Amino acid sequence: DSSLKVFSLNSNRKLAEDIASHIGVTLGKCTVSKFSDGEVQINIEESVRGCDVYVIQSTCAPVNTHMMELLIMIDALKRASAKSINIVIPYYGYARQDRKARSREPIAAKLVADLIETAGANRVITLDLHAPQIQGFFNIPIDHLQGVPILSNYIEKKNLEDVIIVSPDHGGVTRARKMADRLKAPIGIIDKRRPRPNVAEVMNIIGNIEGKTAILVDDIIDTAGTMTLAANALIENGAKEVYACCTHPVLSGPAIERIENSQIRELVVTNSIPLPEEKQIDKITVLSVAPLIGEAITRIHELKSVSILFD
Amino acid sequence: DSSLKVFSLNSNRKLAEDIASHIGVTLGKCTVSKFSDGEVQINIEESVRGCDVYVIQSTCAPVNTHMMELLIMIDALKRASAKSINIVIPYYGYARQDRKARSREPIAAKLVADLIETAGANRVITLDLHAPQIQGFFNIPIDHLQGVPILSNYIEKKNLEDVIIVSPDHGGVTRARKMADRLKAPIGIIDKRRPRPNVAEVMNIIGNIEGKTAILVDDIIDTAGTMTLAANALIENGAKEVYACCTHPVLSGPAIERIENSQIRELVVTNSIPLPEEKQIDKITVLSVAPLIGEAITRIHELKSVSILFD
Ligand SMILES: Nc1ncnc2c1ncn2[C@@H]1O[C@H](COP(=O)(O)O)[C@@H](O)[C@H]1O
Ligand SMILES: Nc1ncnc2c1ncn2[C@@H]1O[C@H](COP(=O)(O)O)[C@@H](O)[C@H]1O
Repeated sequence: DSSLKVFSLNSNRKLAEDIASHIGVTLGKCTVSKFSDGEVQINIEESVRGCDVYVIQSTCAPVNTHMMELLIMIDALKRASAKSINIVIPYYGYARQDRKARSREPIAAKLVADLIETAGANRVITLDLHAPQIQGFFNIPIDHLQGVPILSNYIEKKNLEDVIIVSPDHGGVTRARKMADRLKAPIGIIDKRRPRPNVAEVMNIIGNIEGKTAILVDDIIDTAGTMTLAANALIENGAKEVYACCTHPVLSGPAIERIENSQIRELVVTNSIPLPEEKQIDKITVLSVAPLIGEAITRIHELKSVSILFD
Repeated sequence: DSSLKVFSLNSNRKLAEDIASHIGVTLGKCTVSKFSDGEVQINIEESVRGCDVYVIQSTCAPVNTHMMELLIMIDALKRASAKSINIVIPYYGYARQDRKARSREPIAAKLVADLIETAGANRVITLDLHAPQIQGFFNIPIDHLQGVPILSNYIEKKNLEDVIIVSPDHGGVTRARKMADRLKAPIGIIDKRRPRPNVAEVMNIIGNIEGKTAILVDDIIDTAGTMTLAANALIENGAKEVYACCTHPVLSGPAIERIENSQIRELVVTNSIPLPEEKQIDKITVLSVAPLIGEAITRIHELKSVSILFD
C-alpha cells in the first residue's frame, strides 16, 4: 500500500489545500516559480519515490504557463520515481478546440491530451469537460466528475417555486436535462438563429417560462455574452426571475460588467477556476468542488469505484 | 517536387520575413492570435496540402505562449495534410534545464523535444543549442546551425589588434576555441571560484590579457551578471578593451542596465531573439541569422547537405 501525496501548482492553490485537507493530508512541498527570463522553475522538496502522487492544476489563464507548469511537474515526478502520477485538472483549458469546425483548424484539446500523456501522466481526473468526447482523446484512465449535482443541490436548498431549467443554446440541452431531472423541473431552450446573413439574431424561447423562475445552466461562462442575452430575453418574455449557473467561471473580457448589468439575479459557479478579487462581486456565489475531488482521490487511491459520486 | 512554404508565428516575425525573402518566397498566410480568455487561436489561411512547410518560431519570452503557439501550429499543419513539417527554432527555450543537477529536477529541454515530436514535427532546425547534447533528445532529424562564424566575421572586419578570445566560464571554452580558430587568436578563461562557502568569488584570469583586446563569447546572455563581471575583471587586470558577443540575447531583468554600466565597449548579438525597443541601446550590435537559416532551408529542401554552412 503506497503513500498518497498531493501537490499543488500555481493555478488554484486554495482549492488544492481544501482538497488535501478533505483527504486528510498536507500538501507536498514544492516550489513553482519562474527564472528571470520567464521559464518555469520547479523544485520538488520532498521524496516522491514509490508514492502515488496527485497534482492539482486547472489550465485556466494564464493557460500556457499553467500548461507548461503541469507538463514540467509531470516530467520531474517521473524522473523522481513516483509510482503513479495522477493529474487533477478541475478546469481543462483548450477544451473548446475539440474538433475541426473549419479547414486547417487545430484540435488543441487533443494535442493537450497527447502532451499530458507524453510528459508521463498515468491518470487524469477532471470535471465537466466542454465535450465528454474529450475523454476519448486520452489513452490513460480518465475520471470525469460532474458539477451538476453540486449546482443542483444549491439551487434546491433555495426552495424556489415554479422552476424551469433553461439551456442558453442547443449545445447545452443534455446538461439542462440532467439538472431538471435532479430538480424535478421542466426544461426550456433559447433557440437563437439568424434569419438571414447580416440581420440581427432572433432569440426564440422554447418552453413555457411565463411567471416562472428560470435557471440558466452552462458548463463555461467566458465573456458572458450568451448568458446575459439569454437572461434578458427570458425576463422580456415573461419569466419572473433568472438565476444562472455554470461549473467553470472563465469570466474573461467584459464578463463581469455584463453580468452586473444583466437581469441575472444570482450567478452560481464552482471554484474549478479561482476568482481574482476584482471578479468577486455580490451577484456571484462560489461553491466548492474540493469535497467532490477529495472524495474521488480517496476512492481512486483505495481502488474503489468513483461512479458512485455521480448519483 | 513539392512546394516550400514558410510560416511565421509570433516570436520573431521580422526574422521570418527576412528568411522568406532570402529564400525567395513570401510568408504563408496565417493568423496567430488569442481568444478573450488567452487561449492561442491559429488560422492557417492557405492550403498546405502536400507542401513542405517551414515554421519559424523562437521559444523566447513569453516562452510558454510561444511554445504553445508552436505546438498548436504543428497540430494544425498535420491535420491539414502538410507533406512535411519542419520547425525552425532559432532560440531553443528551456535549454538550460538539460540535466538533473539536483534531485527531483525536471529535464525540461528533453520534455520540449518530446512535445514537439508528439505534436507531429518531422524535422528541427536550430541554432547554437545551450548544450549540443540536446540534439540527442530528438528522434527526428535535427540540423544544428552555428552562430560563431557570423560573430567571428563581424569581429574580423573590425581589424582589431592583439585580440584574445575569452570564455566567461569553464563551460564555454570549446566555443571560445572555435572563435579563436577563426580569428587566429589565443584563448583565455575566466576561472571563477569560491574559496570557501560564504566568501566572495575570486575571478582568476587564465591567459595573458595584458594590453590586449579581449573578446568575451557565450551562447546566451540572460541577466548579464557573468558577462559584465568578467568584462570588468578583464579591464581591472590590464586588458586594453573588452568586446562581448553571444548568439542569443535573452537580456532579462537587470541585463541592459548592467551592460550600460559595464566596461563592455560593444556587445554583438544575433536576431535569434528580437530586441524590443527598450533593449536597443547603442552598445548593442545585432547581426542577422536570416541568410544562414534561409540558406539552410533552401539546401534542406533541395536535399543538399547543410554541413557546408559550418565551414
Ligand atoms: N478559448 C476560446 N474562446 C472562445 N472561443 C473559442 C475558444 N476556443 C475555441 N473557441 C471557438 O468556440 C467554438 C466551439 O465552441 P462550442 O460550439 O461551444 O463547442 C469553435 O468555433 C471554436 O473556434
Ligand atoms: N531559464 C533559466 N534561467 C536561469 N537559470 C536557469 C534557467 N534554466 C535553468 N537554469 C539553471 O541553470 C543551470 C544550468 O546552466 P549551465 O550550467 O549554464 O548549463 C542549472 O542549474 C539550471 O537550474
